[in-house]
Amino acid sequence: MTAADTTSSRAVAALREGFIDDLFVTDPEITVSFSRDRTGAYFGLPLAIARPRSAGEVSAILIRCAKLGLGVVPQGGLTGLVGAAVSDSVSPEVVIRFDRMSAVRSVDPIGYAMVVEAGCVLETAKQAAEAEDCLLPITFGSQGSCRIGGNIATNAGGFNVLRYGMTRDLVLGLEVVLPDGRVWDGLRTLRKDNRGYDLKQLFIGSEGTLGVVTAAALKIFPRPSQVQTALVGLRSTADAMRLYAKARRGCSDLLSAFEFMLRDGVELAFSHRPALTDPLETVCPVYVLMELSAGGAVDLPRVLESCLEAAGDLVVDGVIASSQAQAERLWSLREAMVEAQSRDGPYYRTDVSVPITSIPAFLDAALAELAASLPEGRPIAYGHVGDGNIHLNVVPPPGASEEERKTLFRRAEDLIFGVVDRFGGSISAEHGVGRSKKRAFLERVDPVTLDLFRTLKHVFDPTGFLSRGRIFDD
Amino acid sequence: MTAADTTSSRAVAALREGFIDDLFVTDPEITVSFSRDRTGAYFGLPLAIARPRSAGEVSAILIRCAKLGLGVVPQGGLTGLVGAAVSDSVSPEVVIRFDRMSAVRSVDPIGYAMVVEAGCVLETAKQAAEAEDCLLPITFGSQGSCRIGGNIATNAGGFNVLRYGMTRDLVLGLEVVLPDGRVWDGLRTLRKDNRGYDLKQLFIGSEGTLGVVTAAALKIFPRPSQVQTALVGLRSTADAMRLYAKARRGCSDLLSAFEFMLRDGVELAFSHRPALTDPLETVCPVYVLMELSAGGAVDLPRVLESCLEAAGDLVVDGVIASSQAQAERLWSLREAMVEAQSRDGPYYRTDVSVPITSIPAFLDAALAELAASLPEGRPIAYGHVGDGNIHLNVVPPPGASEEERKTLFRRAEDLIFGVVDRFGGSISAEHGVGRSKKRAFLERVDPVTLDLFRTLKHVFDPTGFLSRGRIFDD
Repeated sequence: MTAADTTSSRAVAALREGFIDDLFVTDPEITVSFSRDRTGAYFGLPLAIARPRSAGEVSAILIRCAKLGLGVVPQGGLTGLVGAAVSDSVSPEVVIRFDRMSAVRSVDPIGYAMVVEAGCVLETAKQAAEAEDCLLPITFGSQGSCRIGGNIATNAGGFNVLRYGMTRDLVLGLEVVLPDGRVWDGLRTLRKDNRGYDLKQLFIGSEGTLGVVTAAALKIFPRPSQVQTALVGLRSTADAMRLYAKARRGCSDLLSAFEFMLRDGVELAFSHRPALTDPLETVCPVYVLMELSAGGAVDLPRVLESCLEAAGDLVVDGVIASSQAQAERLWSLREAMVEAQSRDGPYYRTDVSVPITSIPAFLDAALAELAASLPEGRPIAYGHVGDGNIHLNVVPPPGASEEERKTLFRRAEDLIFGVVDRFGGSISAEHGVGRSKKRAFLERVDPVTLDLFRTLKHVFDPTGFLSRGRIFDD
Repeated sequence: MTAADTTSSRAVAALREGFIDDLFVTDPEITVSFSRDRTGAYFGLPLAIARPRSAGEVSAILIRCAKLGLGVVPQGGLTGLVGAAVSDSVSPEVVIRFDRMSAVRSVDPIGYAMVVEAGCVLETAKQAAEAEDCLLPITFGSQGSCRIGGNIATNAGGFNVLRYGMTRDLVLGLEVVLPDGRVWDGLRTLRKDNRGYDLKQLFIGSEGTLGVVTAAALKIFPRPSQVQTALVGLRSTADAMRLYAKARRGCSDLLSAFEFMLRDGVELAFSHRPALTDPLETVCPVYVLMELSAGGAVDLPRVLESCLEAAGDLVVDGVIASSQAQAERLWSLREAMVEAQSRDGPYYRTDVSVPITSIPAFLDAALAELAASLPEGRPIAYGHVGDGNIHLNVVPPPGASEEERKTLFRRAEDLIFGVVDRFGGSISAEHGVGRSKKRAFLERVDPVTLDLFRTLKHVFDPTGFLSRGRIFDD
């Protein structure tokens, strides 16, 4: 047994003392499963995994860890992609998992609200809403694994932000355990409540650094009974913006998705899934995948058709899905493109945003600079137009060494983030800063903002033991 | 000249020193106009009125006032109804007005965003959006006087919250001068930006206690080209909730207002404006005023009709406005009811919220208790069903003395707020706490929340000179 092992066993013994035996798991064969996030880039074996059953137990864990000087990090489904929820590898942390706090407490189909515990898997919460013919509109690829607590801590985005907003916009109330162990009870379903500061906003998107979310009240919506999906081919990203502005108007805020892809990405999808065929006769430089959803009384096919008619010659070619199966085929083009990027190993991914009207100029500039400076990388750009959110990724050449990839990734980041800066954009639109974007964030943040971040962190967590080093350093 | 006058002149001289002459107005004949809010209950002649032209001047004013130990309060249109923006009467404050910072800086009809200065009158901002065929959806009675800075500081609500959210939901970015004079630049139109803590949320709804909002970026929407309005008579408030749940579903989130009134209120309206006639043949205990709005391609009349058909025998009687004039007549019923309450002098008004599904039980309980304990008062209840927001007011008997009114108001408040507490509601849904609800707020707030409020206030404003004594005491 090494000296480090001894220190670690002592710490574990002190941590466990007086608690029910099964509150902590320390067997490395189990804890290793919660040591790596989906990017694969962050690995850290925790000192222990805590599995609380209640906010009271979370409180007791935080008080104990603070007393012992142990770091703590709350963990959701490990799908955040910025390395925030994995234990530090040098100073192992106590990871709190919420698999025992995963109940759907209530679904109210008249007041359109539901209450869930932090550990509830998003998909489970969505199904509970659907069982009452309602919609919890947080929607993205990892919804089968991510947990509500993580969605709130990261203010998760997704496909339907255009229509329903970010996770922040859907939170009516929260229960949060503060770093000092006090439980803040803001778990209410009130739609309007202007009694002073809206404290819950502080915790949403704070990536677990200011408190631990244990339960949430969320807005839900009538579940749309109709969906219309179209793939439209256009001449340019500027035309995609024009179509977006017209479509929001013409579709009367019934647009639930408006995704763009470039021809390059579509071809990558074809090469990855040979069964996919070009859905349009004309090859176009830019494609938009539009989705509208509505309740029964709206003639949704007519709304979509008249919107596309009104778009006139903006639309070069297009197809409206005549069945759900066809709609799924159109979406599978986008899925295949996303999958194809990682076929030959890791690729560089971004999650940036710019003001919506700047999307065409941003893309032109970034793609031109990538072509000039990093011709070996294959840029793939797609995104959520209505949110100004672009995933501009770079796929390395096949057979690139790890060293070559690293260099390419670093140069791509400097280049793309530099262009984002010129357009007043954000280097993290929906995934957060975590650890993977900390350097880039700190290079750009203005001193007043950073000072306020540090001040708030110090107020809530003076010793900085909760999610230490995420977003910024104390 | 009294000793107090001398102190005051010295303070004014010290305040003015080195600034351009016209930055401060101290002539009481002018400052008196900004000394009373719309409720009439709060009066305070300010030490001076500051009229800055820029965030830089706001900063200089705050630094100077902090140095001199003078209190400062930012003031919008004085329509907040909770006494927050009027100078204290005992310790006169420096009131900052924003009439020189009232520009609409930009309106972007493609990105659906606009940037305005804090002093912009809401109506002016709405008109600027309309000129680009867009909608700034903050809508309420005082929109011709209130200013955007005040809307943000109070997180204003209104008629269209059901569809478009509170002011908070519409804010994309803010510029704020902190109490220490630093300018925090968060003025961005990005729709998605997850770079750490969302600092702007702290200032929205903080009633001017944490910083001074000087400019804002706001979400705007396509301007609806069609509106449908209906007045529906129902048997009970419980049926109004059932209709609401069905209408949200049946109208596919195109509902822009869903207001309820009781028969008592409708009769009060008739007595106030004799030209108004009963719009329905059947006298009903409960009425709902529904409004739907949409763009051109939706067959909105059909959506409304099929929604009401699907409601079946929930609907006792109803009328759909066949013209804008008829729609205005339906709305005028509500306006007349609101006006009629103050015909014979001040009345007691509330602005409470409960979970939507609790509205019927809350109203039954509160009205029964009012009838039993305060039979001399006439309760008038109306509100925004979709937000759980009820204005349950009490009109004193004609000829009541000021003393009788005061007693009635105090007893009505204790009684109504007591019922709100039982239903887990809020004593301030959309107007804020200010000074008028401070006592009631402090009696109810939990210690963790109050401690966090005080901690945040202390962090931003350690000497407590900005909007002192609003919401809570330091």
